[in-house]
Amino acid sequence: MIQFSSGQRLDGGLLERPFTLDGVPGLLWTAGTVSGTAPVILLGHPGGLDGMRPRLVERARQCVASGFVAAALELPGGGDRPRLPDVDRARADLRRALEAGEAVADDVVDRLVLPLVERAVPEWRALLDELLALPGIGGPVGYSGGVISIGVRLAAVEPRIVASVLFAGSYVPRSIVEEARRVSIPLLVLLQWDDRWNDRGMALDLFDALGSAEKTLHANTGGHTGVPAFEGDDADRFFRRHLR
Amino acid sequence: MIQFSSGQRLDGGLLERPFTLDGVPGLLWTAGTVSGTAPVILLGHPGGLDGMRPRLVERARQCVASGFVAAALELPGGGDRPRLPDVDRARADLRRALEAGEAVADDVVDRLVLPLVERAVPEWRALLDELLALPGIGGPVGYSGGVISIGVRLAAVEPRIVASVLFAGSYVPRSIVEEARRVSIPLLVLLQWDDRWNDRGMALDLFDALGSAEKTLHANTGGHTGVPAFEGDDADRFFRRHLR
Repeated sequence: MIQFSSGQRLDGGLLERPFTLDGVPGLLWTAGTVSGTAPVILLGHPGGLDGMRPRLVERARQCVASGFVAAALELPGGGDRPRLPDVDRARADLRRALEAGEAVADDVVDRLVLPLVERAVPEWRALLDELLALPGIGGPVGYSGGVISIGVRLAAVEPRIVASVLFAGSYVPRSIVEEARRVSIPLLVLLQWDDRWNDRGMALDLFDALGSAEKTLHANTGGHTGVPAFEGDDADRFFRRHLR
Repeated sequence: MIQFSSGQRLDGGLLERPFTLDGVPGLLWTAGTVSGTAPVILLGHPGGLDGMRPRLVERARQCVASGFVAAALELPGGGDRPRLPDVDRARADLRRALEAGEAVADDVVDRLVLPLVERAVPEWRALLDELLALPGIGGPVGYSGGVISIGVRLAAVEPRIVASVLFAGSYVPRSIVEEARRVSIPLLVLLQWDDRWNDRGMALDLFDALGSAEKTLHANTGGHTGVPAFEGDDADRFFRRHLR
């Protein structure tokens, strides 16, 4: 069940309402005044809501300015949620391999990413059940951000999601690349060309595998956190084209 | 020397003026009324101005609506210009290899593309000399379209060109990939993911090699002529960001 604590008004009339959903913390951003029902954009992120909050608020601000509401949910194992020791170990293994300049074993990627996908996807879907029952919030739904494997699974299994912006900023299990063939919604995939925490070839293989008739890749120079500001505008236009 | 024949007014007030430059045919598109000096966008194309004209007019219309002027010049060997038999032979060799599902030899790509680059680049530069001396036309200059190897060479050697949209829709000689490292202007590279007349891996290698600090790749599903309409808007925004 979703439980809201008291909201606060941010610059520009943005209303931010913290909540918990079955104990999982999250944030909902809406316009101060409600008229009709707004589509929802789920804001994916790498975990640690508190640290991510400034960047999430900026993304939410653009969503709300375009007539959407935006929501984020803490990642399993992220922030103050119970650690996932197996995932932490896999993350340490990945960093060790990358820092040693070694190839990353498939097994490490599976152990890091698949448990997050298995846990996060039902949580996001339960959040949708709750959000779409609130006054002023309606379909359709978009997903925007990382973890890209979570975004792919959601696009494959959640029919309320009609368009997604996927950030190719993390390693992808081979089984998720296979799942990508079942995705059919319009997609915009963002790739940072020089992201040392990502495998460019694997990201391109994932883009190739995605089954959607309309899919666009935007690749830019720069590292993981260097996504150019104009990509925010492009994502906004993409959602305005598909969610309205 | 540039010589204009009588122009015609097209829908929406667009003024189209055919010209020849030292015997090479071309087209110039401007707004009907001149105020100040407009930046120039050179519209690259695969040759055959008459056949390409409907699509070029649409691209020119968007340029002019954004406050630019646009110009196109017949490709060496294209349209009514004298054939280039060696290039024609290389093109036939390329088609034969593709239709047989064979790898395309570097030598075929060199024989097809390098003579076009060698001839076309000085012609585009001479056109710039003429255009920038006309009333109502000023710098800066952009290049938009294919042949991508011509666009790369121009970006590397012509300092009046400050931003380019490059269409990765043709095979690229390895020497041009090396030249790409010297390019430093902002770039938007368009790639059709399923273009059977192009080598996707080579296009990605070229994108990787380009030396520009700001470079963006937009890849879309579909074949050579299937560039989505929204990419026209994206190219327009790119030029408005960099030419004004």
